[in-house]
Amino acid sequence: MRIIRPYTLKFIKGFVSFPKIERNMIAYYSINGKITPAGQAALRLNDLSILRGYGIFDYFLVKAGKPVFIEDYLERFTRSAALLFLDIPQLTGSLEEAVEELIQVNGLHEASIRLVLTGGYADDGYTPLHPNLLIMAHPYPDINPLYYTDGIALMSYDYQREIPEVKSINYLTGIRLLGEMRRQAQGLLYHDRGLLRESARSNVFILTADGGVGHPCR
Amino acid sequence: MRIIRPYTLKFIKGFVSFPKIERNMIAYYSINGKITPAGQAALRLNDLSILRGYGIFDYFLVKAGKPVFIEDYLERFTRSAALLFLDIPQLTGSLEEAVEELIQVNGLHEASIRLVLTGGYADDGYTPLHPNLLIMAHPYPDINPLYYTDGIALMSYDYQREIPEVKSINYLTGIRLLGEMRRQAQGLLYHDRGLLRESARSNVFILTADGGVGHPCR
Repeated sequence: MRIIRPYTLKFIKGFVSFPKIERNMIAYYSINGKITPAGQAALRLNDLSILRGYGIFDYFLVKAGKPVFIEDYLERFTRSAALLFLDIPQLTGSLEEAVEELIQVNGLHEASIRLVLTGGYADDGYTPLHPNLLIMAHPYPDINPLYYTDGIALMSYDYQREIPEVKSINYLTGIRLLGEMRRQAQGLLYHDRGLLRESARSNVFILTADGGVGHPCR
Repeated sequence: MRIIRPYTLKFIKGFVSFPKIERNMIAYYSINGKITPAGQAALRLNDLSILRGYGIFDYFLVKAGKPVFIEDYLERFTRSAALLFLDIPQLTGSLEEAVEELIQVNGLHEASIRLVLTGGYADDGYTPLHPNLLIMAHPYPDINPLYYTDGIALMSYDYQREIPEVKSINYLTGIRLLGEMRRQAQGLLYHDRGLLRESARSNVFILTADGGVGHPCR
């Protein structure tokens, strides 16, 4: 495994946390299990993500070179795929092995991984036949430490995601509201018919005065 | 203008309608105003259509080498773009000229054109900065003539599109229901809280017994 630390350490003096992996240091993505130089990784225009926003994804962290809670994420990813009738392409090994291979060829220590399964190329522009599986590596998320100590403001919005049991790629509402949200808050909180649902990009947990923990459910 | 008729006429004996343009005869697409060989036309994986289903589109016919009702379609396309805060990339000429250029280089007579405007490449995987404009040519739609004489069956479904005033690329629900729909019907009819909305891929008009024409509106 290639560890790519020296580059960032040179520039971040006195920074004692893990060196940040810069986006331009991620050299490879995986498309349908094939390791592909990131600069050449692309989808043809008739992919159903581009034409119809049809796809699912998942996202998880890599710590000390290992994907965290990967079984749970792959279970959710597989469930989302099944609910949209998308077959995950046959790989030479397992999906988990494909993720680990990408971590290794990129020499990642602290990073994040995004899995995307699109409707695939469609000559008729509508019918999913052979989904495309993308595995992308990203830097470890760079979250403002003040968010943890001071908290964040949430802008509330009346909305429920379409087919909420599927982690689809559909972020029309969240991205459309970005400008308005960023003028007044750091996140978006969805509620629907009086019920709390989720944040645009994360779960929501509620701590009660008596020490309980709750979260929105069906 | 190159007229590409002989190829199909050879194979469709006795067929007296316009020769069908085969998909593999469409040689070029346009990406941000640049004519690109269709086989090389692609988007990098960090486009927000692929990562977040964020984009709009429009679709119209070409008859006798000319786009039909193009002003109306471009007006709707421009309105959809504005509602999602997407800037249409600056072209050397107008958008209409870019469409006409693509019709010309492909030598199209009867065809269809799809415009797509995606959220563009996003290093943070979320924030639209520089949208990607795609212009694609497709064959003229091949609709079963029996649909016009015998009608079609519609499967009704309780649904309204997210941000319905925007012609977004989001077809999660329509495509997810394709299998179920095709077992019993030829199209999907959306209604929402007792009101007729639209079909999954077309408008709906209602003819009344006294000769009136109506359609769903706000």
